[in-house]
Amino acid sequence: MTGHLTIALDAMGGDNAPQSVLNGANLARKRFPQVRFLMYGDEARLAPMLDRLPRLKKVTHLKHTDQVVTDDAKPSVALRSGRGSSMRLAIDAVQEGHAAGIVSAGNTGALMAMSKFVLKTLAGIDRPAMASFFPTLRGESVMLDLGANVECTADNLVQFAVLGEVFARTVLGLMRPTVGLLNVGSEELKGNDAVRAAAARLKEMSLPIDFHGFIEGNDIAAGTVDVIVADGFTGNIALKTAEGTARLYSEFLRQAFRSSTVSKLGYLLARPALRKLRKRVDPRRYNGAVFLGLNGIVVKSHGGSDSLSFATAIGVAVDMAVNGFLDTIRGELERLQSAGSMDQPAAAVKA
Amino acid sequence: MTGHLTIALDAMGGDNAPQSVLNGANLARKRFPQVRFLMYGDEARLAPMLDRLPRLKKVTHLKHTDQVVTDDAKPSVALRSGRGSSMRLAIDAVQEGHAAGIVSAGNTGALMAMSKFVLKTLAGIDRPAMASFFPTLRGESVMLDLGANVECTADNLVQFAVLGEVFARTVLGLMRPTVGLLNVGSEELKGNDAVRAAAARLKEMSLPIDFHGFIEGNDIAAGTVDVIVADGFTGNIALKTAEGTARLYSEFLRQAFRSSTVSKLGYLLARPALRKLRKRVDPRRYNGAVFLGLNGIVVKSHGGSDSLSFATAIGVAVDMAVNGFLDTIRGELERLQSAGSMDQPAAAVKA
Repeated sequence: MTGHLTIALDAMGGDNAPQSVLNGANLARKRFPQVRFLMYGDEARLAPMLDRLPRLKKVTHLKHTDQVVTDDAKPSVALRSGRGSSMRLAIDAVQEGHAAGIVSAGNTGALMAMSKFVLKTLAGIDRPAMASFFPTLRGESVMLDLGANVECTADNLVQFAVLGEVFARTVLGLMRPTVGLLNVGSEELKGNDAVRAAAARLKEMSLPIDFHGFIEGNDIAAGTVDVIVADGFTGNIALKTAEGTARLYSEFLRQAFRSSTVSKLGYLLARPALRKLRKRVDPRRYNGAVFLGLNGIVVKSHGGSDSLSFATAIGVAVDMAVNGFLDTIRGELERLQSAGSMDQPAAAVKA
Repeated sequence: MTGHLTIALDAMGGDNAPQSVLNGANLARKRFPQVRFLMYGDEARLAPMLDRLPRLKKVTHLKHTDQVVTDDAKPSVALRSGRGSSMRLAIDAVQEGHAAGIVSAGNTGALMAMSKFVLKTLAGIDRPAMASFFPTLRGESVMLDLGANVECTADNLVQFAVLGEVFARTVLGLMRPTVGLLNVGSEELKGNDAVRAAAARLKEMSLPIDFHGFIEGNDIAAGTVDVIVADGFTGNIALKTAEGTARLYSEFLRQAFRSSTVSKLGYLLARPALRKLRKRVDPRRYNGAVFLGLNGIVVKSHGGSDSLSFATAIGVAVDMAVNGFLDTIRGELERLQSAGSMDQPAAAVKA
């Protein structure tokens, strides 16, 4: 399969699976002709669906399992008893070298627990983080961690900075991405101990990172930096607060346009431009949280993914593979460790 | 001065002071004819300005001081050496019973430190919190803490819930406000220790609070609950993330309208409706962070306040005084303590 790139798919994960997974893969196939799929799931359901998508079928290798990780399964339970599940087999395919990455819209906690167990963290990384990109006034930025680690040490935050920087460099194609630590802004409140210690280390370390220092919540959408580093608690709340505010604003906008006949007419005239706006902030274009810090490419598509979202998530996995994210991050971590710029993992672990 | 209500003003705090303070007070005077002002600041500058606002002058008692707390002053320094400042004298006026509340657009940290020192915290409250209200899909909600306490114990969070609930009841006029704790959402991540312990206490306590449980970042703008409780680190970042996202969205909207001649025409037709939208989310209408938990009413107007913002902040102080916020919260805290529903302050304090 020279020149081909194989992506493993958990066909059974997500609210709209398997249909959204198959249609998403079919969309991705058009965008990435070099991609082949290893698809895990219930053959009795998937085979007839694939028959209706002959071009997808041609580039897909179907692997049967009737086990599925449910959405409400505890990660620890999924880890113990889900060894034959579509999610686990797709992760195994990456570990065994049959696929360059895996995409799943299934249970986030289970996906993280299984990926950590099967793929292990990279040397120099204590904990993997969830990252995603989103639109800003200046283009696109990356934020991590989005919820994998509720409590973080300074070491974790420094490692997230390195992971996020390499991700922005390889996937967003930025030459020298700037990195900021999310903090509170008032002069007298310079944040908690972890944030302060992480900032001190990022400043004094001989890292090749363009560290901007602290940023505040309003800097996220402003695009002040390319990579925003936060603990998983704060990052998750910032992400969801931004989503909620965008929804509030578009609802208010809808109400404003409906408030009179003249404004309805105005809406009709501005509609093509407003469609472009909607497309610009369409969350489906920003779907695909990546788990960074593992020995493998793992992309989590939103649980409610439709086919367009799922295709976007596949695209993120393909971009990471094509642009050599893993090789770059491994090289970077080795260089840092041999330069003594990062603590040894053993010393950094605080369970 | 029967029937009158006196508000102390720090005339020298804020980027646009004293002009914005005087003009703001003049706007507030029209809305609240019963209000009188005790105004602290530089008489040489203020007196001629007041001469040009004769109606404001009539209801204002000017108190001279040439000392000012600067924006970059450390709270501890302001506390030691700012005893004669306009900010401190205005707070003293509340403590001495000459004013029902104080409004300042000056240095936030200094205002908090001085207010705590002069007014002291209410019995049953370990630390005051900053609260503010903002627009949601359902109306208005209150969030606290917005940055006064970067690290919080479960006790702090429980006390914030009580303070926020009484604030929503007395100032927003809600009969039975619902209260939620801001947390991360995925099933496997149930937040940090403080949030979990606070939720357990709010559930089991015989509080008259309508506790909704955990909420996520997107619930803030959705208006899922009336009162959102968070530690100051998370609350500050959520607030500023929402502000930044709203700014991003309106900039994208502006660009969409400008993208073609037809969409420009659409904008002209929809303009009155869009103005209403802008007014609906105008941050100046939501200006005025209140310091809750003190023996006195303290309102912090935004540092960049214009006269409309400052008038809004005065309005918040007036609302709290008129609706008996302090009496209600004192009664509530006493009732809780005698019922043993809240830990004694001594036990709850974790310096």
